[in-house]
Amino acid sequence: MTEPLRLGIAGLGTVGIGVVKIIRRHAALLEARTGRPVVITAVSARDATKDRGVSLKDYAWETDPVALATRDDVDVFVELMGGHEGPAKLATEAALAAGKDVVTANKALLAIHGQALAEQAEANGRVIRFEAAVAGGIPVIKSLTESLAGNEITRVMGVMNGTCNYILTQMEATGRGYNALFEECGQLGYLEADPLLDVGGIDAGHKLALLASIAFGTKPAFDDVKLEGIQRIAIEDIRHAADMGYRIKLLGVAQRSARGLEQRMTPCLVPADSPLGQLEGGTNMVVIEGDAIDQVVLRGPGAGEGPTASAVMGDVLDIARGLRIATFGQPATTLSEEPAAQTGLPAPYYVRMALQDKPGALAKVAAALGDAGVSIHRMRQYDHATTVAPVLIVTHKCTSTMLEQALEALAATGVVEGAPVALRIEEL
Amino acid sequence: MTEPLRLGIAGLGTVGIGVVKIIRRHAALLEARTGRPVVITAVSARDATKDRGVSLKDYAWETDPVALATRDDVDVFVELMGGHEGPAKLATEAALAAGKDVVTANKALLAIHGQALAEQAEANGRVIRFEAAVAGGIPVIKSLTESLAGNEITRVMGVMNGTCNYILTQMEATGRGYNALFEECGQLGYLEADPLLDVGGIDAGHKLALLASIAFGTKPAFDDVKLEGIQRIAIEDIRHAADMGYRIKLLGVAQRSARGLEQRMTPCLVPADSPLGQLEGGTNMVVIEGDAIDQVVLRGPGAGEGPTASAVMGDVLDIARGLRIATFGQPATTLSEEPAAQTGLPAPYYVRMALQDKPGALAKVAAALGDAGVSIHRMRQYDHATTVAPVLIVTHKCTSTMLEQALEALAATGVVEGAPVALRIEEL
Repeated sequence: MTEPLRLGIAGLGTVGIGVVKIIRRHAALLEARTGRPVVITAVSARDATKDRGVSLKDYAWETDPVALATRDDVDVFVELMGGHEGPAKLATEAALAAGKDVVTANKALLAIHGQALAEQAEANGRVIRFEAAVAGGIPVIKSLTESLAGNEITRVMGVMNGTCNYILTQMEATGRGYNALFEECGQLGYLEADPLLDVGGIDAGHKLALLASIAFGTKPAFDDVKLEGIQRIAIEDIRHAADMGYRIKLLGVAQRSARGLEQRMTPCLVPADSPLGQLEGGTNMVVIEGDAIDQVVLRGPGAGEGPTASAVMGDVLDIARGLRIATFGQPATTLSEEPAAQTGLPAPYYVRMALQDKPGALAKVAAALGDAGVSIHRMRQYDHATTVAPVLIVTHKCTSTMLEQALEALAATGVVEGAPVALRIEEL
Repeated sequence: MTEPLRLGIAGLGTVGIGVVKIIRRHAALLEARTGRPVVITAVSARDATKDRGVSLKDYAWETDPVALATRDDVDVFVELMGGHEGPAKLATEAALAAGKDVVTANKALLAIHGQALAEQAEANGRVIRFEAAVAGGIPVIKSLTESLAGNEITRVMGVMNGTCNYILTQMEATGRGYNALFEECGQLGYLEADPLLDVGGIDAGHKLALLASIAFGTKPAFDDVKLEGIQRIAIEDIRHAADMGYRIKLLGVAQRSARGLEQRMTPCLVPADSPLGQLEGGTNMVVIEGDAIDQVVLRGPGAGEGPTASAVMGDVLDIARGLRIATFGQPATTLSEEPAAQTGLPAPYYVRMALQDKPGALAKVAAALGDAGVSIHRMRQYDHATTVAPVLIVTHKCTSTMLEQALEALAATGVVEGAPVALRIEEL
């Protein structure tokens, strides 16, 4: 095949412009690698007059992304608009119906409508590729679906929201609280228009649902992802975790067991000296575990013009080379519907509470935990000037159900002030 | 395509048996992922009677790997024998001539004969795949040739010999010297039959030559790799490097500049808090830098039954799915012949010397360095009980040529005992 591969790009924000730049800068290199020219024929965005720092005059302009997606001179519809409803969804459906392949960076669209879109693509003999939707420039989708396809995947974990990791590592580095850093992120433009997408874990949850699907051959099930943001993480927890050799990360974990499929995107403690614990700032990391490979760790920029455009181009160039694979690694009609695990696999937990400083208080706490079947691995009571003592407990492994019972029992003792903070410790 | 993909496996050592086990364990999973059965039809090894812990009775047995490679009922020749001459080369050539695809873990064969073999494969419309040849289970070949194909690659670095990294990290952890740990590695079976392949950097050098080829679109040029093993690394250097915030790694670096293609596999200092610096034990790590992606770090097991077999299977399953790509990422006939850089890009260097403890000695050293155009960034003279003082210098960036001149000038001062140790500091 030596005829050009013709792209129609919808969405000319950071990533879209990044793709345009790569194609203009590396025309010869891309042709050498794929054996054919890769060209842009048409683009689409809301504002046709805006100066985007790169000339777009060689490309046809469509105001309507659906019109772009169905043009005769477009082979691949590159969807970089975002949003799981509206134009992105309509144009993607239209592209597939018109026999185009689709490359997208849209995690929300695929996490929510991926199953239907993949079925539509396969019915039309088309592919949907989405490396850029998960962990930016890190080649995680391809590693899971292709490189590690000889493995039964046992666990996938990831720090996949740079903003959250930036806030958490800055809290530790500077001693500033969550609210101050959240505000700073807003000023720096690090937050999505709806900040809950970031700090509430929703954006990272979308990514996790996609990873779980390709890791376990299951239909994407974003609704089953247990979501918890970083809003409640106090500077004390970051300090205490560090004291005990841990760091707090907004960590996605997908794991399949006899209990069903477990998908969590929650703040967790990880060992400070592990690759996840050492991850600073906005960088992303994905850890893949399989029965043959043991463990592979992939680390890189999770966002930004260059890295995300690099991932989009990886998918585009696969299509140019004729490398075609089903959206979720196997035909969408063969993906299974795995029940969501009602309780996760047992894990140790970190529990922080404010204990009334009076005789017998600690004994009551220990008894409450013991009655719930939760045993104590490490305990620390800190020096205190008030009548309330900060107490930290690291439990032995227990299920989340057992832990919840223990927390209820703690409340009933009458010696614990307020609600204890409980965070899972993810072992590596 | 739903007919089975039929493998002939030559070499039933650790990796070969690992592949057999995966195919027996995961028949259904592999078929679900690729849409067709993946089966073994024939195997070959030197000793047909040896108990390898897994039943081989379903497979035809060939004593001669060439006979195996050319069987009518073999689609893919899986070469896991090793060695760059003899049976591995003959059987690979025979397989390609007979129209078979080839999957191999043989870094030496490809580093030395890869260009000719790739040309033969492409003339026959066949592929050679070799993910398992570089950094074991880490998906580095695929990441470079496919995921990051939209990038101009600017630098590739890797710690790709687990035995060397084990020795170096154990030296730091235990304070034991190189010779004792080398002996221990021999007893533990961590060393190749010719240990220079490991500690002399040859094995890792083969891997680097392959990475450089796919990163820069150049013919594999193992002869141009500057090789230096870890035999001369003293425990003092490990301690001093740590003191100054560095770790010593046997680090491969490939980089293209106006000076030509630079390929080095040498002991280097890297920042202790960088991903490379934090790498412990036998784990491998590859760092890829490109103009769009910035930097991606891949970490995982570089050897062993499961991980290497996982990489072999990734390649096999690509072929089963019809994902076919040229051996070195673009047609072998289009690979360029890049001249080897005669002098590397400038870098800071670590220099340790034994300085005679007499007035004016340090001034002579400083003058010698200055005359060679090498300026001092940091200097330490350690406490000493003898008449000779250990002196460490970290230079500002200079070329290797300038450094060599400086070392000659140091020898001529008459105040430096023996030859100074000089190690490049690779910045991340």
